[in-house]
Amino acid sequence: MMKTKVITKSDLQQILSHLGLDRLMDELIDRLTLALARFDDSQTLIKKRDGFAYDQPHPGVLEWMPCMQSQGRVTLKMVAYNPKNPQLEQLPTILSSMSLYDARNGRLLCLVDGTLPTALRTGAASAIASRVLARADAQCLGMIGCGAQAVTQIHALSRIFDLSCIKVYDINSQNTESLNQRLAHLGIRVIPSPLHQLVESADILCTATSVEVQAGPIFADGRLRPWLHINAIGSDLPGKTELPLSVLKRAFVCPDFIEQARVEGECQQLEAADIDASLVDLVKQPEHYRAVREQLSVFDSTGYAIEDQVVMELLYDYANSLNLGTELAIESYTEDVFDPYAVLKPQTQIKPDN
Amino acid sequence: MMKTKVITKSDLQQILSHLGLDRLMDELIDRLTLALARFDDSQTLIKKRDGFAYDQPHPGVLEWMPCMQSQGRVTLKMVAYNPKNPQLEQLPTILSSMSLYDARNGRLLCLVDGTLPTALRTGAASAIASRVLARADAQCLGMIGCGAQAVTQIHALSRIFDLSCIKVYDINSQNTESLNQRLAHLGIRVIPSPLHQLVESADILCTATSVEVQAGPIFADGRLRPWLHINAIGSDLPGKTELPLSVLKRAFVCPDFIEQARVEGECQQLEAADIDASLVDLVKQPEHYRAVREQLSVFDSTGYAIEDQVVMELLYDYANSLNLGTELAIESYTEDVFDPYAVLKPQTQIKPDN
Repeated sequence: MMKTKVITKSDLQQILSHLGLDRLMDELIDRLTLALARFDDSQTLIKKRDGFAYDQPHPGVLEWMPCMQSQGRVTLKMVAYNPKNPQLEQLPTILSSMSLYDARNGRLLCLVDGTLPTALRTGAASAIASRVLARADAQCLGMIGCGAQAVTQIHALSRIFDLSCIKVYDINSQNTESLNQRLAHLGIRVIPSPLHQLVESADILCTATSVEVQAGPIFADGRLRPWLHINAIGSDLPGKTELPLSVLKRAFVCPDFIEQARVEGECQQLEAADIDASLVDLVKQPEHYRAVREQLSVFDSTGYAIEDQVVMELLYDYANSLNLGTELAIESYTEDVFDPYAVLKPQTQIKPDN
Repeated sequence: MMKTKVITKSDLQQILSHLGLDRLMDELIDRLTLALARFDDSQTLIKKRDGFAYDQPHPGVLEWMPCMQSQGRVTLKMVAYNPKNPQLEQLPTILSSMSLYDARNGRLLCLVDGTLPTALRTGAASAIASRVLARADAQCLGMIGCGAQAVTQIHALSRIFDLSCIKVYDINSQNTESLNQRLAHLGIRVIPSPLHQLVESADILCTATSVEVQAGPIFADGRLRPWLHINAIGSDLPGKTELPLSVLKRAFVCPDFIEQARVEGECQQLEAADIDASLVDLVKQPEHYRAVREQLSVFDSTGYAIEDQVVMELLYDYANSLNLGTELAIESYTEDVFDPYAVLKPQTQIKPDN
């Protein structure tokens, strides 16, 4: 009988301990690069994010992001966003889970948490975009916003660049301070810095803030390094943007997923003609974009379902090879397909139903 | 730490054994009646079925049906339909699973198989429609199509009506024969019958066939009993219908979900003006439709997400009260919400993230 593998928190811990976070991130960057290089939009179907929004008892959304590789697999990520959770429910703002289906037969193969995988793949995507668009000798990283995404952004970029200086800023200084504790086990140290100093000295800049809708930009245009590459992570809602329009206007702009970025990314601020390439374009022809390293560039990251699929498959593969996960008969499909009540009877063979 | 309850096949067996199938069906009919009677479309959001279709390596679809009760719960049913599964994959044509989320905070509460619950709720819906639209003293049930749905249709109707005669027909006589074996444990006996005889003698008729697109109707209009009530279950695709247009034209027609029925149910054959009421209308004001018992009527059943929610909650409630199900930490949400890598560390308290 074939079962569904549920990867629990303790399984995730074991996968992470076995691989180590550096190797995990390196492998994710490699796999995502390969998936983007092979990307064929006739073979990959991505549905626009859809979901429910509610106001009662407190505001929130529950959304699903489906992605299918034809002749391959379907990934469905569910994301719940409930900003009052920490105060009212003793739960975090974001809860998420991911399901993997076999597109040959529809089987539910695997279930896993979606929060850590999302942070990992968002970091990996910035590393991949930066590898093409930032100077290879970039040393100074500036990080605006020191929440959860900062950890994986800094980690992923440190795997690609030899960073001698990581300056960080957050409107809440507690977050700036705790970031060093959160990064210590990775051997990474960051330096709290005034915002303008951080922006002006950066070779690579990451923005990952929870700025309110219509409250951006989060820094002023000014004396940026001519070759600055920016990974803009935070904008994920209509009206929520982080970058000054003047920066976007003179930069080379590359979103992960153009249609989505024009609705909820920095690309909301732009016309279609202002957008220069997609992440898939970069990875398919990196040499074509080499000259962009010497100019201002922006990676507009809104979250791409193919990234979820790659990280889900990586975790599934390691859960299999390390023999981890709880195997459960969820779909009850070994019974007489003509008898829904056969679930009550001893297991019988599958009977073709036509 | 709060966990997700996974209801496995053996848990389902225990719930069914504990309740007994009759009590399970009775309780489902009661709960669904109550949910329909209380239905308020400002409080219940149902998304249109969406999904992926594929041709390679063999044809199939994977679809999701989401439903939300505001201030309550979200149910997401996944259904995979792969007609070549029995021959090529040793799996049934239909695989399904259902997820239950708490709409107050986004938590994934429960996972369970979707195949048996779908058959149960489809039976319950026919029983509820028939209780309003068929004569209370209906004795003769005709069943066309003796696959999986026939079991729960006959079972559900036998809980509401004192059926002295159940005539059955299938184009494949093996299915007709095996139906008695599948119903024996319920104390129900059926009589294989020629199609025209079955149709002409029925007080209640159910159609649940896999007739091909454009190949209907599955029986000819003719000498039907004037008070015949029909539960049309099989049409579930554009172009797939089971009933003669002339029957639909002179019948009182009630779909479960009008918008969906006009796309994939018998109502495809009708104009909006030919549709008389919805299942919610019937249940909210049964006395208003009492006179319809003496005339020809059709319940056009295409599957309504609220039915899935009711059966999912019933199973979840019994799994809880019987202390069944495997509790697993899938969503890893007890860590420092600012540190995705905290999953590697000992459990810490939730920290509000703003």
